Amino acid sequence: MPFENWRQEINTYLIQTLEDKLPSHEFNEVIRYSVLPAGKLFRPLLVYSLAKDLGEINFNHKIFATSLELHHTYTLIHDDLPAMDDDDERRGRPSCHVKYNEWKAILAGDGLLNLSYGILGDMNSTQLPDLIRLYAEYMGPKGLILGQVKDLGHENKSLKDIIQIHELKTARLIQLAFLGCNLLSQSPLSTTICQQLGYALGVNFQLLDDLCELTEPLNTHEKEINPFLHFDQNELFSIIQKNTDLMRTVMKQHQLNCLKEYTNTYLQKMNKIISDGHQTIIKSVDKKYLTSINDLKI
Amino acid sequence: MPFENWRQEINTYLIQTLEDKLPSHEFNEVIRYSVLPAGKLFRPLLVYSLAKDLGEINFNHKIFATSLELHHTYTLIHDDLPAMDDDDERRGRPSCHVKYNEWKAILAGDGLLNLSYGILGDMNSTQLPDLIRLYAEYMGPKGLILGQVKDLGHENKSLKDIIQIHELKTARLIQLAFLGCNLLSQSPLSTTICQQLGYALGVNFQLLDDLCELTEPLNTHEKEINPFLHFDQNELFSIIQKNTDLMRTVMKQHQLNCLKEYTNTYLQKMNKIISDGHQTIIKSVDKKYLTSINDLKI
Repeated sequence: MPFENWRQEINTYLIQTLEDKLPSHEFNEVIRYSVLPAGKLFRPLLVYSLAKDLGEINFNHKIFATSLELHHTYTLIHDDLPAMDDDDERRGRPSCHVKYNEWKAILAGDGLLNLSYGILGDMNSTQLPDLIRLYAEYMGPKGLILGQVKDLGHENKSLKDIIQIHELKTARLIQLAFLGCNLLSQSPLSTTICQQLGYALGVNFQLLDDLCELTEPLNTHEKEINPFLHFDQNELFSIIQKNTDLMRTVMKQHQLNCLKEYTNTYLQKMNKIISDGHQTIIKSVDKKYLTSINDLKI
Repeated sequence: MPFENWRQEINTYLIQTLEDKLPSHEFNEVIRYSVLPAGKLFRPLLVYSLAKDLGEINFNHKIFATSLELHHTYTLIHDDLPAMDDDDERRGRPSCHVKYNEWKAILAGDGLLNLSYGILGDMNSTQLPDLIRLYAEYMGPKGLILGQVKDLGHENKSLKDIIQIHELKTARLIQLAFLGCNLLSQSPLSTTICQQLGYALGVNFQLLDDLCELTEPLNTHEKEINPFLHFDQNELFSIIQKNTDLMRTVMKQHQLNCLKEYTNTYLQKMNKIISDGHQTIIKSVDKKYLTSINDLKI
């Protein structure tokens, strides 16, 4: 599958969209800095892969894929703010508020949030009203934003709590990618299938991302509060395994060959981590092993 | 005209919308606190008034009016943040980040921004794509947000600069109210007329709001940096007069009787301020006179 061609196509449209929609004012640098150079474009490529499996990739898919990347970028900018996660780095560079300043970062995020909805108006689809409703339901106060609220409010006392935060904060955007793509495609799947796939993929990535954090040296206090060191790790790994199995089964059953190919590298790595890591992680936090999970960052 | 009935209708729909779209989680209080009790609902009532003049008020107008109020509220919450205008009070109560905290205020704003677009999906209108494009153009990085950027970047060295900020930060939302209403109405006006009306109304309100700030006692430094004490006040008042005249002429010419009635109280007050105040403000900053402008806050 021409994943690299698709990546370039989305990248080109992303650049063109910013050229069209940003003002001739130095503020456009703040937004461009956060969006470009584009990362792996993981979410847009999920849209393209599923679109291919459900018919042909059309202009509406391109707009939707670009919109998701803009929206994802706004969430990262706001998440990094001092009042939120207070992260100084993003993708190996200073985060937006560090490079510029806080108010510019807040407004860059707000600007991208507006644009992520605004460019949907460029679509030619009778599904637009449903898509917008879905978008705000999954990204708004009942969706992704509720995940941020629970995360910052430390509502993460049990593995179940943490998985719920991952479902809201990470999986909702991937579910939206699948559900939105589905709305715009000729031979759609059921809503439930899209939700399950997005849930399994999103939650697994985030659980593995959490494990990555254990590669950082922890002091005694951090060891006490890091919930991952206190959970039943058998349960944790069996959840990851279950999600991986579900994805494989669903993709096979519905002949989602392109999506399967695109996610395969990730799924294989997940499997390897589970089989290699199970014993390791129970005994101790092995830095070398866990570092390999870093490759999985989306 | 039944302005009070309309206000109640919009208020009811606003409450219902929040009930539908907010989660069963204490975070919904943060959003409700900022939206309710509703203020004058000035922008939604502009939509209703113009809609009445251009045919009949329909369900799409109600959704659009509600969306504008949600969007307006998000801008206020983010504007008040410490990194932005750092305002501790809003509508005589603690601002959102003071009442709750900063991250809750950031996320409440983001949530409302999402909802302001999301509820447009509840419309039944072939104009939806145009409306969404327009919305993001007027509220996004080329519109309202650029106004916030210029304001916070102190790009306010001349009266012309300040008026441009008011055009972007205040008038764009009023222009959007008129242009969006126009799109959803049976007998629309020209785009230019809507833009002119929104410009004149928005810029005038904001100029008068600036004059209000002069009611605060100023120290020597503040007197030096307050641009209004250094401008040609004849020019300032002639601009306000010109905008007021334009509104009256356009509303008369296009028989916008309902809009005229709704804005009339404001226009009369503006005229009084111009005639009473012209001499006063040139001689000195008369607190008593300027306090009366406070009634005009939208």
